[in-house]
Amino acid sequence: MAAQRRIDLVLDSVKRLLRIGATANLLNLLQKQHPADLAQVFTELPDKDREAAFTILADRNGRLAMEALSELGPEAGGRLLATRAAEEIARLAQEIPSDDAAALIDHLPEELSNAVLDLMRPKESRVVEHLLEYDERTAGRIMNPNVFALNEEITVGEAITELQSNREVEMVFYLYVVDERRHLVGVVSLRRLLLVSPETPLKRIMTADLISARVDMDQEEVARQVAAYNLLAIPVVDEENKLVGIITVDDVIDVIKDEATEDIYRLAGVATDERVFTPAHQSLRKRLPWLGVNLGTAFLAASVVGIFTRTIDALPILAVFMPIVAGMGGNAATQTLTVIVRGIALGELSWSNSRKALMKEAAVGIGNGLALGLVAAAVAWMVNGDPVLGLVLGAAMVINMFVAATAGVLVPLGLRAASIDPALASSVFITTMTDVFGFLSFLGLATLFAHNLTRTG
Amino acid sequence: MAAQRRIDLVLDSVKRLLRIGATANLLNLLQKQHPADLAQVFTELPDKDREAAFTILADRNGRLAMEALSELGPEAGGRLLATRAAEEIARLAQEIPSDDAAALIDHLPEELSNAVLDLMRPKESRVVEHLLEYDERTAGRIMNPNVFALNEEITVGEAITELQSNREVEMVFYLYVVDERRHLVGVVSLRRLLLVSPETPLKRIMTADLISARVDMDQEEVARQVAAYNLLAIPVVDEENKLVGIITVDDVIDVIKDEATEDIYRLAGVATDERVFTPAHQSLRKRLPWLGVNLGTAFLAASVVGIFTRTIDALPILAVFMPIVAGMGGNAATQTLTVIVRGIALGELSWSNSRKALMKEAAVGIGNGLALGLVAAAVAWMVNGDPVLGLVLGAAMVINMFVAATAGVLVPLGLRAASIDPALASSVFITTMTDVFGFLSFLGLATLFAHNLTRTG
Repeated sequence: MAAQRRIDLVLDSVKRLLRIGATANLLNLLQKQHPADLAQVFTELPDKDREAAFTILADRNGRLAMEALSELGPEAGGRLLATRAAEEIARLAQEIPSDDAAALIDHLPEELSNAVLDLMRPKESRVVEHLLEYDERTAGRIMNPNVFALNEEITVGEAITELQSNREVEMVFYLYVVDERRHLVGVVSLRRLLLVSPETPLKRIMTADLISARVDMDQEEVARQVAAYNLLAIPVVDEENKLVGIITVDDVIDVIKDEATEDIYRLAGVATDERVFTPAHQSLRKRLPWLGVNLGTAFLAASVVGIFTRTIDALPILAVFMPIVAGMGGNAATQTLTVIVRGIALGELSWSNSRKALMKEAAVGIGNGLALGLVAAAVAWMVNGDPVLGLVLGAAMVINMFVAATAGVLVPLGLRAASIDPALASSVFITTMTDVFGFLSFLGLATLFAHNLTRTG
Repeated sequence: MAAQRRIDLVLDSVKRLLRIGATANLLNLLQKQHPADLAQVFTELPDKDREAAFTILADRNGRLAMEALSELGPEAGGRLLATRAAEEIARLAQEIPSDDAAALIDHLPEELSNAVLDLMRPKESRVVEHLLEYDERTAGRIMNPNVFALNEEITVGEAITELQSNREVEMVFYLYVVDERRHLVGVVSLRRLLLVSPETPLKRIMTADLISARVDMDQEEVARQVAAYNLLAIPVVDEENKLVGIITVDDVIDVIKDEATEDIYRLAGVATDERVFTPAHQSLRKRLPWLGVNLGTAFLAASVVGIFTRTIDALPILAVFMPIVAGMGGNAATQTLTVIVRGIALGELSWSNSRKALMKEAAVGIGNGLALGLVAAAVAWMVNGDPVLGLVLGAAMVINMFVAATAGVLVPLGLRAASIDPALASSVFITTMTDVFGFLSFLGLATLFAHNLTRTG
C-alpha cells in the first residue's frame, strides 16, 4: 500500500531524528502529517520514542498532538496522555472538541482525570463532565454538543450570514432548525440554501420529517440508523426533543468498526479493549478468566470420557477416533453460531423469523452430519478394518452435528433473551455441548455395540 | 428498539393486505416507507410474500423498489430481481444510479444479465458494462461514475449556477475541480463557496492537496482512507489522474460492514456471502468443503493419538485428560489469532512491528500455560491421586500454550506474506497444530514417564 509505505518512511525519519536529537527538524516533520497518519506513526513507534515524539509535538502544537491522540482511540490515546502532568493535560484537552476530550479524559486513571477536570476552564470542564454523565455507549456519550442550529423563523439570507460568521463549527452539511425553545423541528441541507431566494424563511424549505437519536440511544442503534438511511450526521435530542448535540458519520464509522471488533473478539473470548500491542501482563490478565472457564468445561467434558474408561480400557482404539466427533461438532457449531451472531448484530434476525433459522440450521446440520459421517465411517473402516467402528463413528457424527446446529441457533437466541451479549458467552456453552455430546454419543454407542467391535490397535 | 417495532407493524400489515388482496392499500403503505425499511421488510417476509410485494411495488414505483433492492445488498437483491423478466429488469435498472445497477446486474445469472444489458438503453448499458470491467472489490467497481466536477478557471458565482442547474446529481458536498483535460487538480467544499465573493475563480480557493483513490485500489484500502481522514467522499481517478468517479461515505460504511462480516466469517470457515436465510442446500454446499478440510486434519491429529495406542492401552485414564490439552491449546490459539487477524485488518500490525507482537504473545502463552497448567495439574492429581499424571498434564499444557501463541502470530503473518487472506486459512492450520502438539506433548510425556504413572480408572 502506498499509504503504509509513506508512513514507514515517516517512521524511519522520526526514529532517526530522535536518535540524533534534531528536535526542530522532527517537529517540522510531525507538523506536516495528518492526525490520522500521526496516530499510525505513534502506534508503530517503540514506547520510549512514542512518548518523546508526542512530548515534542504537544509542546509546540497541542491541537495536532491531541487530534492524533483522538485518532489513536481513547484507550491508547489515554494511555499516552496519562504520562503527562495534570496541568498540561488540562491545557491540551481544551484544544480539541469536547466530545473527543471527554473520551480521552474518561480513559485516564480516576485521580488524574479529576485533577484535569479541576484545572480546566470551568465552562469547558462543565461540558466534558456533562458528557461523561451519559452512559457509556450511548448517543449522549459520543455526540458533539457543539451543534449548529438556527431558528425556524429566520431567512435563508440570514442563515448564510450566520454560517459565514461561525467558521469554527466543524463539518456543517445539514442546518438543523429549532423553535424558540430549541425543540428540533426540521433540517435544511446546505445545498438547498443555494437553490432558493434569500428572503425565504427556513421553515418554508426545511424537511420536517427527520431522523434523530435520543441521548440514551445505544450507539450501535445510532450507527444502524445512520448507515441504513445514508446520513452524514444525526441530530441528538433529549427527552423533550430539544437539540443537544450532533453525531457525524466519521464517529459512526468508528462505532461500526469497534462493534465489529467487539463481535469478533467476543466470539473468541478476547476482551473488547485488547489490541495487538496491549502490554503482555494486561493481555494475560484479560485472557485468563476466559481460559479458566474453558478449563472448567474441559474437565466437565473429560468427566464424560471418564464414565467410559472401562469401554476405552477394552477398546483403546476408541481414544483415537473420539476427538474427531467432538472436534467436528465444534467446527460445525462455530459456523452456525457465527452466522447467527452476525445476523443478530446486523439486525437480520428477529424473534419472528428465528424459527425459520432453526429449521434451516437443523437441516444443514443433518446434511453435514450425513455427508461427513459417511466419509469418516468409510475411513475408519478402511484404516481399522472394523465396519461396526465405522458405523458407530458415522452415527455419532450425525447426532453431534445435529446438536451443534440446534445449539448454534438456540444458545445465542436464549442468551439474547436473557439480555446477555450472545457473542460473549455462546462459544464456551456451545463447545462444551459439542464436546459432551460428541464423547457421549460416540463412547455411548461404542459401549452399546461393544460386543460387536473388534479389539485392534 | 423503536425502529424494529415499527418494521414489525409494517410487516404484519403487508402480510395481512397481501392475504386479503388489498393491492391499492398495500402499494400505499409500501410507498410511504424508506428504502432501507423496505429492505428490512423484504428480508423478513416469507419468500412468496416478498415476491408478491416486490411485484406490486415494482409495477408502480420502480425507483423505490430498486432502491430497496440496493439496500438489501447485491446478493439478496439480485436473487429477488432474478425472478423477473429481462425486459422488466432492464427498465427497472435504469431507475437507479449506475453503480447500484451494476452491482445488482452482476449478481444475476449470466444469461439473464447479458439479456438485460442488451435491452437497456445503449448509453446506460455502456456505463454499467464499463463498471463491471473493473475487478471486484476495487474502487472502480464501487464508484459512482456520475461525479460532479467543474473547471478550475470558472468562478464561484458560475459554480453556484452550475450546482443549481444540476439538481439530480445526488449528494454533493465537495466540488471537485479539474483542468481542461479532466485531470483532478483540487477540491472546494460547498461551505467554502458561501464564504467568498462570487468573482473568485475556483483555483484560487481550492485545496490542491487532496486525497484520491485510484480505480484499481482495493475497496478495503479505500474504506481505510475515508475512515482515517474523516472524508465524506473520495474522488476516484484513473492511471492518468483523470477524474472518473466518486465513492461516498455511505458506500464506505457498507464496505466496512462487509469486510468485518467477512473477517468474522472467515475465522469460522463460513462463506462470505452466506446470510442467516441463505437456503439450506446452498449453506450446506458452502460449509461442507471447510468441514471436509477439518475432517482431514482431525484424522491427522487422530493418527498422532494412534501412535500412542499402546500407552493408552496401558493407561486408559490418559484418554480422559488428553482432550483437555488439545482443547485449551485451541482456545488460547483462537484468542491470539483473533487479535492478530483483526490487528492486520485494522492496519495496526505491520512487518516492522510483528516481532514485538510475537514476543508479547509468546510471553502471554507461557504465562497462561503456567497458570492453567498448575490448576489442571492440581485437579488431575486430586481427582486421580497420581501426582505424576498431574505433572505430565501441566507440562503438556505449558508446551501447547506456547505452541498456540507462536502459531497464532506466525501462521496469519505467513499467510499474508504468501498473499493468502489470513482470516481464511489460519484457524484450520492452527487448530490442527494445537491438536497435534497437544496430543504429542501429553501422550509423549506420558509414554516417557509411563513407569512412574499409576494405572487407575
